[in-house]
This record gives sequence, C-alpha cells and structure tokens, in this order.
Amino acid sequence: MSGRLTIALDAMGGDQAPRMVLRGANMARKRFPNVDFVLFGRESEVGPMLDRMKRLKQVTTLVHCEDVVSDAEKPSVALRSARDSSMRRAIEAVRDGRANGCVSAGNTGALMAMAKMLLKTLPGIDRPAIASFFPTLRGESVMLDLGANVHCDAQNLVDFAVMGNAFSRTVLGTLEPTTGLLNVGSEERKGHEALWNARAQLNEVEMPGRFHGFIEGDDIANGTVDVIVTDGFTGNVALKTAEGTAKLVSTYLRRTFKSSIFAQLGYLLARRAIEKMRKRTDPRRYNGAIFLGLNGITVKSHGGTDAVGFANAIGVAVDMARHGFLDRIRTDLERINRHPPKARAAAV
Amino acid sequence: MSGRLTIALDAMGGDQAPRMVLRGANMARKRFPNVDFVLFGRESEVGPMLDRMKRLKQVTTLVHCEDVVSDAEKPSVALRSARDSSMRRAIEAVRDGRANGCVSAGNTGALMAMAKMLLKTLPGIDRPAIASFFPTLRGESVMLDLGANVHCDAQNLVDFAVMGNAFSRTVLGTLEPTTGLLNVGSEERKGHEALWNARAQLNEVEMPGRFHGFIEGDDIANGTVDVIVTDGFTGNVALKTAEGTAKLVSTYLRRTFKSSIFAQLGYLLARRAIEKMRKRTDPRRYNGAIFLGLNGITVKSHGGTDAVGFANAIGVAVDMARHGFLDRIRTDLERINRHPPKARAAAV
Repeated sequence: MSGRLTIALDAMGGDQAPRMVLRGANMARKRFPNVDFVLFGRESEVGPMLDRMKRLKQVTTLVHCEDVVSDAEKPSVALRSARDSSMRRAIEAVRDGRANGCVSAGNTGALMAMAKMLLKTLPGIDRPAIASFFPTLRGESVMLDLGANVHCDAQNLVDFAVMGNAFSRTVLGTLEPTTGLLNVGSEERKGHEALWNARAQLNEVEMPGRFHGFIEGDDIANGTVDVIVTDGFTGNVALKTAEGTAKLVSTYLRRTFKSSIFAQLGYLLARRAIEKMRKRTDPRRYNGAIFLGLNGITVKSHGGTDAVGFANAIGVAVDMARHGFLDRIRTDLERINRHPPKARAAAV
Repeated sequence: MSGRLTIALDAMGGDQAPRMVLRGANMARKRFPNVDFVLFGRESEVGPMLDRMKRLKQVTTLVHCEDVVSDAEKPSVALRSARDSSMRRAIEAVRDGRANGCVSAGNTGALMAMAKMLLKTLPGIDRPAIASFFPTLRGESVMLDLGANVHCDAQNLVDFAVMGNAFSRTVLGTLEPTTGLLNVGSEERKGHEALWNARAQLNEVEMPGRFHGFIEGDDIANGTVDVIVTDGFTGNVALKTAEGTAKLVSTYLRRTFKSSIFAQLGYLLARRAIEKMRKRTDPRRYNGAIFLGLNGITVKSHGGTDAVGFANAIGVAVDMARHGFLDRIRTDLERINRHPPKARAAAV
C-alpha cells in the first residue's frame, strides 16, 4: 500500500505522559517517514513540548481536549463522562476515517469499552480480544485473549483463532501460522467443554496454516505454535506469569554476576553478548497489545513504558494499517461465515 | 517427632523406573538415616538391582506386585483393573498404617484417583488439590491447585487456602504465611464470582498469617505471598508457563555464552557463580507435588525426573510425615468448621 498514513495518539495516557508519548512519536517519525500524527491532549501541556520538537511538529496536528481518563476510572464511568477526553477523541478519529489507527497507553478497560462502543465489532464477531506477540524459542508467537473476556465460550475461542491467524500473517509475516488452544493437557478430554467444542470446530475451519490442537503452558515459550488461543483470564495469568518469571531469572543472573570477583570479570567479558540478548528480550520490544475484532485499529501501549516502548506500539499500529489487516480479517471472517463448519451449531 | 519412619515407594512409576527409583531411594537413605522403605514392584526387575545396593537393602522391604499402571492408562480404568499394581499397593501401605507416606513418579491422574479412593479426603474437604513449591524473588512459595480440579467453587478455593497455609508452615517452616488468590487484577470485582466469594470468606477465616487478597501472575515469581491459591486449570497453565519461560531464558543464556570468544571466556570466569545459580533453580530441587486434603501423605514425583529429583520427592514426604502435617491440617480444618465465617453460607 502506498501513500501516507495517519496515526491518532492519546497524548495523555501512560505514567510518563505526555512527554513519553511525544518522544515516542518522534522516534516513530524517523522510522516511518510516511506517517502523520494527530495528537489529542491538553494544549497547555502538549503544545509547548511539541513546539520544541520541530520535525515532529511538521507531521503532527495537535487537537486540544479538556478531559483525561485516569487509570483508576471505571470503564462504565469513563464511557459516560469523559466525552472530551484525549482517549475518546483518538478513537473517534479512527471511526471517522481521519486516522488509520490509534495508540493509547491509558486505562485498558476504558480504552476497550470506548473502542468497542465507537468502532463496533466486525461482522460475526461477538467479542473483541486483546492480543500481543512475544519471543519464543522458535521466533515470535501471538497470544489472545489477554484479558478482555474472563469467560469465553467455544465460539469466542474459534473467533480468536481466526483473528490471531490473520494477525500473525499480517504483522509477523507468517505465511501459514499454526494455531493451538491452551489447555492442561493435549489429550482429547482434558480441560473443559468450551475447549472441547472449540477444538472440534477448529478442526473443520478453513484457515491458512494448520490447527495443532491443545497445547500446554510450556508450549508458549517453546514456540510450539504461532497463535495461542485462550480465554482472557487464563491468557492474562499466563502472560504475567511469563513476565514475572523472566524478571526473576534476570534478577538471579544479575546477582550471580555480582557474587564474586571472577563472576564480575566474566560479566565484563561477556557484556556485549549479554546486552544483545537483553535487547532481544526487552519487554519494550513487545510493547503494543492489539484490540482485535473491532472495525478499526486500536493499539494499547503498556502504561509504564517509555518512549522506546511507545514508539514500538506505534509501529504495531502502522504495520497493521499498512498491511491491510482489517481487509484481511474481514475476508477471513466472511469465508468462515459463508462455510460454517458442521460443528458450529454444537458450540457451548 | 522421634522414632523411625517408613516411606512406601512405587518402584515402577516414571520414565526411568525402576533404576531411577532405587537410586533415588539410596540417596534419600543417606540424607534420612531414620527412614525405612517399602518398595512395591516386579521382583524379577527390582530384586537384582536391590541386591546390588547392600546398604539400601538393609532398610528396605521389597513387595512383589504383578501390575504396572502405564502413563497412557485412564484413571477410571486403572482404578478398576490395576488391583495388584505397584502404585496401588504403595497407597494401601499408607492407608493400612504400614507406611507414613508414599511416593510415585507414575501416572498423575491414576495416582490421584487411587489415593482419593483408598485414603479418602479429610473431614470437611470436598476435593483434594495438588500443591508444589518453587523459587521466588523472596524465597520459596507454595501454589495449589496445580491440576486436580479444572472447575473450582469458592469453598474449594477456601479449602485450598487452609491446606496451603498448613503446608507452608509444616514443610517450608513459614510461621505466618501470607495467602493470595490468583486473579487478573487486584481490584475487588476483577475475575469471576467464585473468586469474589472466596475472597470474602478468606477475609473472615482465622488462619496463622495474613490473607493478602487478589494477586496477579507476576506476583508468583515476585514472591508477593507465601501461598498462591487458584483453580487447577489456571494453576497448571501458570506452573507450566513459568517452567517454559525459565527454560527459554536459560537457552537464550547458553546461546549468548557461545556467541563470541569473549562471551565464552566470560562464561569460564563466571562459571562457579552460574553453577550455583543453576543449582538453586534446578527443577529437580522442586520435584515432588503433594496431594493435599487426603487422609495420608502422597507425593507425586515428576515422571521424567532422575534419581536426584526422586530423592527430593522422598524428602518432601519425609518432611510432611516428620512434622506431623496431617495432625496440623486436621486441627486447622476443625477450627474453621467449628467457627465458620459468616460469608461461608454465601459460597457459590
């Protein structure tokens, strides 16, 4: 796809906003010279900062909004009250076609509620899901849902599989992604009924790639499949458990390298290699959770990220827009809805 | 507690059985000079091996059993058919008071089904749970359930909390353990109803230590609490996700140290410190999942472990028996049943 893209940014979301958002946008500007930005936020705070970033200012329009959605705000309250919020205005820009996608590091629940209300779900999709990608032994995989839906039925899981498959092809460039359902064992009657029915349906759905069947927790990091499908409760726990474990191991490692003079010397020698590894597993590299299943591209950045992480979240939105993610997923969903698998009627 | 203990061992369970079992027992013998063993297995296979281990033989009785429960066998089938199996006989020894606990590295589902049928659950306990301990940033924590119960109601979760609390005090020696319910957020209405009700009940239950409330996936490795309570589906996924992630990071690390000549030299210098860290995080050190809630001590060793891991699983059984775990948990359950929290009636 040629031509310029426009990405809407919620300048007020995130622990270090708005500075972090502007600095992230400035990094993304260098990486994506064909992208314009629309910044939504308080003129008095954002304006002076933007004035100091001449090059960014050349490709950016600043739109003043009075309200900011706080992290503590309940989604239902944010929906009703924060009408002139930077978050809402950014999503509206996508809805109205003034932007090809939006990025916010603000309140996840409020962002999802607003995006769902304003953008609506894609035809055939009951519930949107949160997806993200992360490093594995074999490369990179996508997992969804990461927390939008605590309870999921078989049909939701099948929809997530279709959406994750399209995402893997579009953003990670996997031609024929393999898909697995996260469970507590690979045998047929492990886990619960929604998983059994989703498995039966996925065995019949026509998707590029291959349906692997059930996978277990250790298959996530092993990279057994390209797309990991699960309910939002399990996905959220798994993602945070993996993050916590990675942090634990690197803390042990840091302590180890400080534990003796030999270890310190060893660290100095191996430092370049270790830094390379750190870069590869840097959580900022995997920043940017995507709301899949909506009529528009919405990317949620981690609230605690810095400019580097935010620039990567912008990169995810740009990739999705540039590679026509929405068209691809619409085509996939249409094909499935036209040829429903036999088992579909049996969904829990 | 003084006097000798007897531990029953399923000699035929595990990928490398019976050799691994005998060698593990021999290691445990040195560590626990006051422990006798009863080995259940095929005389023709186990007998000659035991004959070569003179010292082990002095504290061991070998009981011949014809059957072996295979890993593929369904629990329901194993219950009906494998009457003269090494697994069943080991549990029967505990039931009949001939052993203070048993250890098996065989089929988990079959072991749980047999242990539940033969030992019965403790008064007030509806469903037994699988628990294990593992390293955290702050020391060691216990998590349960790790896979015995896919669906759990609030009362099950409360029971798990009480059992995990007693286990933490007995085996890890934590005087006042903190307990947390695994969820997708710490706010009151996060997750699902069973969690909300369990939280309400746990706020009123009298236990040594403190109830922390909801925790998230990253709190597991952070060691935020001593006892992590969750349903068997989530617990199983979380445990395996953590194992997979730890393996991923150590594979990255191995590759890093091989990536340049400087890194290799660095590794040589830091090797002693790195080996120490490896030892501390060695999965064999945390081998031995405990079936909690039964009228008897049953420890499940990982099927793929070696003699070192199996010896550690024996160590868990010995610790539980020696410190009177069953008496402690019976007292705790009685106290709770005598003074039921007000919220108990509201359990889902």
